[in-house]
Amino acid sequence: MNDHFNFTIDKVDDNCARACTLETPHGEIKTPVFMPVGTQGTVKGLTPKVLSEMDAQIILGNTYHLALRPGADLIEEAGGLSEFMSWKKPMLTDSGGFQVFSLSKNAKVTEEGVNFKSHIDGSNLFMGPEESMAIQNKLGADIIMAFDEFPALPATKDVIKSTVERTHRWAQRCQKFHKNSNQKLFAIVQGGDDPELRKFSSRELTAMDFFGYAIGGLAVGESLEKRLEVLEVTQPELPFEKPRYLMGVGTPVELVEGVARGVDMFDCVLPSRNARNGTAFCSEGKLNLKNAAHFSSFYPLDKECSCYTCENFSRAYLRHLFKSSEMLGPILTTIHNISFLIQLMSRIRQSIIDGRFSEFRKEFYRKLEVNPLEGTRYEIR
Amino acid sequence: MNDHFNFTIDKVDDNCARACTLETPHGEIKTPVFMPVGTQGTVKGLTPKVLSEMDAQIILGNTYHLALRPGADLIEEAGGLSEFMSWKKPMLTDSGGFQVFSLSKNAKVTEEGVNFKSHIDGSNLFMGPEESMAIQNKLGADIIMAFDEFPALPATKDVIKSTVERTHRWAQRCQKFHKNSNQKLFAIVQGGDDPELRKFSSRELTAMDFFGYAIGGLAVGESLEKRLEVLEVTQPELPFEKPRYLMGVGTPVELVEGVARGVDMFDCVLPSRNARNGTAFCSEGKLNLKNAAHFSSFYPLDKECSCYTCENFSRAYLRHLFKSSEMLGPILTTIHNISFLIQLMSRIRQSIIDGRFSEFRKEFYRKLEVNPLEGTRYEIR
Repeated sequence: MNDHFNFTIDKVDDNCARACTLETPHGEIKTPVFMPVGTQGTVKGLTPKVLSEMDAQIILGNTYHLALRPGADLIEEAGGLSEFMSWKKPMLTDSGGFQVFSLSKNAKVTEEGVNFKSHIDGSNLFMGPEESMAIQNKLGADIIMAFDEFPALPATKDVIKSTVERTHRWAQRCQKFHKNSNQKLFAIVQGGDDPELRKFSSRELTAMDFFGYAIGGLAVGESLEKRLEVLEVTQPELPFEKPRYLMGVGTPVELVEGVARGVDMFDCVLPSRNARNGTAFCSEGKLNLKNAAHFSSFYPLDKECSCYTCENFSRAYLRHLFKSSEMLGPILTTIHNISFLIQLMSRIRQSIIDGRFSEFRKEFYRKLEVNPLEGTRYEIR
Repeated sequence: MNDHFNFTIDKVDDNCARACTLETPHGEIKTPVFMPVGTQGTVKGLTPKVLSEMDAQIILGNTYHLALRPGADLIEEAGGLSEFMSWKKPMLTDSGGFQVFSLSKNAKVTEEGVNFKSHIDGSNLFMGPEESMAIQNKLGADIIMAFDEFPALPATKDVIKSTVERTHRWAQRCQKFHKNSNQKLFAIVQGGDDPELRKFSSRELTAMDFFGYAIGGLAVGESLEKRLEVLEVTQPELPFEKPRYLMGVGTPVELVEGVARGVDMFDCVLPSRNARNGTAFCSEGKLNLKNAAHFSSFYPLDKECSCYTCENFSRAYLRHLFKSSEMLGPILTTIHNISFLIQLMSRIRQSIIDGRFSEFRKEFYRKLEVNPLEGTRYEIR
């Protein structure tokens, strides 16, 4: 099965923006790519058919959530997560590390792993590198992630350093435990907001030779400037010929700037979470469907968007759905927000292939009418 | 536009089961037909695309809800309800009468119409026959309903009789007010549970010559036996050559028995409401997805069903979605429940065309393994 995986760099433009092709047993992924998040084995509100029609190439599942409910054994018995949720294309699972720290109760970390209480029923659970691998092996995604630790920021250099070193030791244990050749393992670079430790983490993990590299711990509150600075120091230390994945980051501005700094893969719950609250991503910025201004607006969310929602429904109709608490409001807005990012990535890719990524980037900001590095309408969480 | 409407009886079988074709400006409807309900301008959880793929031929909108929010003027400005919600096929709106009595607060009826308070904001509103027609003209559905009154049962014969007579006077006022030739008006037969008054109402309204006839006031708690008895006395009094619509009734058993008694059209919120609670309609009866028994069941909801849900997802997955409070649970179960009724109607129609409706009916009950007239797994609300 090994030969089903391949990573090819199709084109590099404007210094380090890349267009690549990642082949997996479940099909090919053209990068840069935005990966919708299916936390509990479903991208909220969307059928796999709708996701396919939106040209989603790969989706995520969350190891922590799925291990707790319905459990990895049931999903393995179903033939893996793809089979269980009827998603025929490539899939990625995270390690569970992020959620063990952020969602569970009373997480206690030792060298062995993490003791924590389930956020569902309060039961005592343990997850370490081997448990994360065993669960991800059962879930059976094409791409799986090493179990990592990250510090709550701000933190002292010593604290960050100790989590980085533990992340490296855990990555090694994951590598040792993981045997399925039809699943490829990515390591996660940590190092908080410390440029030196980010470089250190990148070098150490590169030396361990993983299939791909994720940049973790960058979706928890720091500024956009800080994120981009970390990306800038990390990127040159990562192996050029391997895929790079920026975890949990996905506003339109972050995608464009991430690509400009050599990132190939992105995921984020923000487009779908925002959609459920009535906030749509548009070429000209964010739009809140609950605003009275849209009451009698028969324009689509975005006149340049070719998604199902924009081709069929007005802002007035979508606003009516939200005001009436109808499920279809979140559904149609999620379709738009995710499609919007998928279309953005496809245009970015084409601009790289055509050698005009820097022009694309300028045009993107011209439409946005603000320089996001000075203050953007796409607020960062 | 008048000539866009036509009603043809293709075949009558087993005494009075009918297969007909109803032509409208938005397309043709093959009957018997189950019409999904889109109360607030959306069939809950389903895009029009999904509804089309399920072969839904016509859907309903609710005049009361839409008049209150977003208002008939906005929908008219959007180009009508079909345009507003992007549903390209035929549409029917009810009169608002049922909801004015059942949902609003402090409804007070006079000969003029009904004064009531909005269930949304408590504002004082009035709806009479002319208001209902004016709103339905703005909504622009192909088929519209006359504004009616019905009694809360049990009621004395005198009370029922006075609501029947008022319903007739109101029907006449609707007929007089309604001018759009591209919308056809149905009258609603009332008469509670009184066979004589049902006959009386049918005859009087038949004499007034409407395009079609609905049987109303039969979805509010009476027994299945009572409903069928009312149908049996009403049906012979209605004009053979015109469409007949049984309002608000739609369990599988009721559809089969309604067709057996000459009904062409049905609507009901039950299949979608049940779906949202995790209850699926299946050939062998109802199935509750929240039951632990389905935890590791990799069977589809119904092995004979060809809907998107049954072709792609297991009971175990659907149960997981409900246990995790994921929107996709209600969505996929709604797709199944409505598809199940659409497929049932399509098989009923084929059996009528082939002259074997009575065999079909026997086979239907054989699968259900109980005689519904003695007690069925499809409980009546």
